[in-house]
Amino acid sequence: MTTERTASETPDLGHAVPGTPHPDRERQVLDRIARARRRKAVVREERITLAHGAGGRATHTLIEAVFLKEFGNALLAPLEDGATLRLDGARAAFTTDSFVVSPLFFPGGDIGDLAVNGTVNDLAMCGARPEYLAAGFILEEGFPVADLRRIAASMAAAARAAGVSIVTGDTKVVERGKADGCYVTTTGVGVIERPVSLSASGARPGDAVIVSGPIGEHGAAIMLARGDYGIEATLRSDTAPLHELVSGLLDGVPGQVRTLRDATRGGIATILNEVATASDVAVVVDEDAIPVRAEVTGVCELLGIDPLYVACEGRFVAVVDGAHAGRALDALRAHPLGAGAAVIGAVKDDPPGLVLLRTAFGGTRIVDVLVGDPLPRIC
Amino acid sequence: MTTERTASETPDLGHAVPGTPHPDRERQVLDRIARARRRKAVVREERITLAHGAGGRATHTLIEAVFLKEFGNALLAPLEDGATLRLDGARAAFTTDSFVVSPLFFPGGDIGDLAVNGTVNDLAMCGARPEYLAAGFILEEGFPVADLRRIAASMAAAARAAGVSIVTGDTKVVERGKADGCYVTTTGVGVIERPVSLSASGARPGDAVIVSGPIGEHGAAIMLARGDYGIEATLRSDTAPLHELVSGLLDGVPGQVRTLRDATRGGIATILNEVATASDVAVVVDEDAIPVRAEVTGVCELLGIDPLYVACEGRFVAVVDGAHAGRALDALRAHPLGAGAAVIGAVKDDPPGLVLLRTAFGGTRIVDVLVGDPLPRIC
Repeated sequence: MTTERTASETPDLGHAVPGTPHPDRERQVLDRIARARRRKAVVREERITLAHGAGGRATHTLIEAVFLKEFGNALLAPLEDGATLRLDGARAAFTTDSFVVSPLFFPGGDIGDLAVNGTVNDLAMCGARPEYLAAGFILEEGFPVADLRRIAASMAAAARAAGVSIVTGDTKVVERGKADGCYVTTTGVGVIERPVSLSASGARPGDAVIVSGPIGEHGAAIMLARGDYGIEATLRSDTAPLHELVSGLLDGVPGQVRTLRDATRGGIATILNEVATASDVAVVVDEDAIPVRAEVTGVCELLGIDPLYVACEGRFVAVVDGAHAGRALDALRAHPLGAGAAVIGAVKDDPPGLVLLRTAFGGTRIVDVLVGDPLPRIC
Repeated sequence: MTTERTASETPDLGHAVPGTPHPDRERQVLDRIARARRRKAVVREERITLAHGAGGRATHTLIEAVFLKEFGNALLAPLEDGATLRLDGARAAFTTDSFVVSPLFFPGGDIGDLAVNGTVNDLAMCGARPEYLAAGFILEEGFPVADLRRIAASMAAAARAAGVSIVTGDTKVVERGKADGCYVTTTGVGVIERPVSLSASGARPGDAVIVSGPIGEHGAAIMLARGDYGIEATLRSDTAPLHELVSGLLDGVPGQVRTLRDATRGGIATILNEVATASDVAVVVDEDAIPVRAEVTGVCELLGIDPLYVACEGRFVAVVDGAHAGRALDALRAHPLGAGAAVIGAVKDDPPGLVLLRTAFGGTRIVDVLVGDPLPRIC
C-alpha cells in the first residue's frame, strides 16, 4: 500500500522554485512531464484495474478515452464535480456519484450520509443550492434489512441537515456474491442563484489557494476501520455538507472565487493537479501551511501514505483572487466547518501545469497525480 | 422459476365479472384481499431477498417500510416512475434507475442502451421532454475495457437517438468478486412543457386501458440469452426510447391521458395493479386483447412464466378517458413504436383495488402482483 507518483521517477527539483532560474536539466524534466500530460489519453490496459477508480491518472485517462470520447458534449467536457445547465430558463447544477465504500459503517458516518453529503457537496462546488436528490440502491441478496434501515435513516438525517429532499429512487437486488452488501448512487440537482462561474480552469497567477480545513480525516478513518493496525486513534470521518460554508465564502468575497473542488478520492493533491492542468498554471503550496491533524499524520506515516493523497469528505480547495484571500479566510472561519481553513499556497505562471510543494526542509518537489490506488473503496 | 401469485391461494372467481352479482363467498375473498392490501407495510424478512428487487409486492413493501418511512416527503410519496418538481420556476421531472441486467449484452441491446432508454422512458412517463442524463458506473476489477467501450458507445448512440446529453458521471471500481462486471445507474432530468397531470392514482371508471405494443419481449429475450433452453427464436429486446410516442399521444388526446407507466420489472400485471390500488378502482382486461407475439408466448409456456409478468423495455400502459380511446390508439399507431398498440381493457368501480383478467375461456381471475422473482436481474 504505497502512494505511487510519477514524481518518484523524476529527479527532485531541489531549488526549482518558480521565480528562480531553472538549470537546463530541470527545464528538460519539466518539459518532458508537460509533453507527457498533453498526450492523447489512451487506455493501455485490457482490463479494468482498481486504479481506474482511484480518481487519479488512470481514472482521468479512462474517462477521457472512453466516456468523453463517446458522450462528448460541451457540458460534460470540463469534467467538473457536476454539470451546469439550463433547464427551461433555470440555471441548475446536476451531479452523480456511486458509493462503494468499505466498510459500510465507519467512525463518523456510513455509506448513507456519505452518499448524501457527497452529492450535496458536488452541487455546492458548482455554486448551487442543493435541492433534490435521487437514490439508487444495488443490494446483495442476504444483506441485513436492519443495516439497510440504518443506512436509510442516516441518509434521511443527512438530507434533513442539508435541507434537501430525496424525491425519487430505485432498488435492485443481485444474487449473493454478485455485490458487496450495498452500493448507493446519489444524484442531485440544485439551483445556481448567484452569477458565479466556478471552474478548475479559472485559476490565474496571483490567486491564493485555500483549503477549508484539516485534510485526510475520512481516508484515515476508513483505513483504521478496515483492519487492526494496532493504532489507537479517535479519528472520525469528516463527512459533512459544505453548502452553507460555500455560501458564506461566495457571499464574503463576491466574484472573487475562481475554483471550488471538494477533495475526495485522490485528496488535495489530485484537486491541485486538476487546477494546474486545466488552468495551465503552476500551483505552489507550502507543506508547513497545509493543516493536517497529528493523528492523520501518524496513521499516514505508519501506512506509508502521503496525506496529500488521502480523501476528505468535508473539505474543499478554493482558488480565490489573491487580494481577497484574507476576507475569504475570514468568511470560511466564521462557519464551524471552516474553522481550520488556511491559505496553503499560490498560483504562479511557471512551470505551467504542475503542482510544486515547498517542503518543510526547504526543498521543492513535484506533486503529481496518483498512478496506483493506495486506498480502494474509500467512498 | 415460477410465477407465484397470491391469486393461486385464492379460489378462481369463475363468473365474477364486475357488473354481475358476486356470490357472498367471492365478496369475502375480495374483501380479504382488499384488507390485506391496506395493511401497513412491514418487512418481515431479516435479510434482503431477490424478491425485494423484483418490482412486485416485496419491493413495494421494502420501499414503503424503509425508504418512504425514512425519506418521506410529498414528492416521493406517489412512487411514480419519477418525481415531478419545481426548479426555480421550471416544472421538471427527475428519475433514477440502477441497471444490473445479466447478461450485459443480449439480442436487441445491452446494459448501455437499456440504461439510457430506461431513464428516457421514465421521464417520458412523467410527461417530460428528456434533456440531460447522469451516468454512474460501478466496475469490477478485471472487467474488459473493450466491453466498457462497447457499453459507452451504445449509451452514446441511445442518447443521440433520444436527443439527450450525458452531461455528468462517476466511475468506481470494486475488487474482483465484489461486483458482476458492470452496473450502471442513470439519472435523468427533463422539462414538463405540457399542463399534464399523470399519475397511477388518476384512473376513473369508464377509462380505457391501452398497451403501446406487444408485451414481454425484453424479458423473453433475456431469458433466452441466459441459457441453452434448446429454443430457436429470433426474439430481441424491445428496448427503445418512448418519448416521441408519448408526445404523439399527449398531443393526440390533450388532457385525456390519466396515467402513463412503462411496463418494466413485473410486466404489465404490476403496472395494472399499481393503477388499481392507487386509484382504488377495478382494472378489467381481456386476455384475448393483450398483444403478445407467438414467440414470447412460446418461451413463456416452456419456462412456466406468465407473459403478463414479463418485463418490456419499450412498451407502456396508458389509461385514457374512454371516450377518447379510439383517437388515442390512432395517435399511438401513427408512430412505428406504437404500431402494435391495443385497448386491452377498461377501468371499473368494482371490485376496487383489483385487476381482473377475462380469460380466453370465458372465466375471470384475479391478476395479483408478483410475490417471488421469476426473473432476477432483468434490467
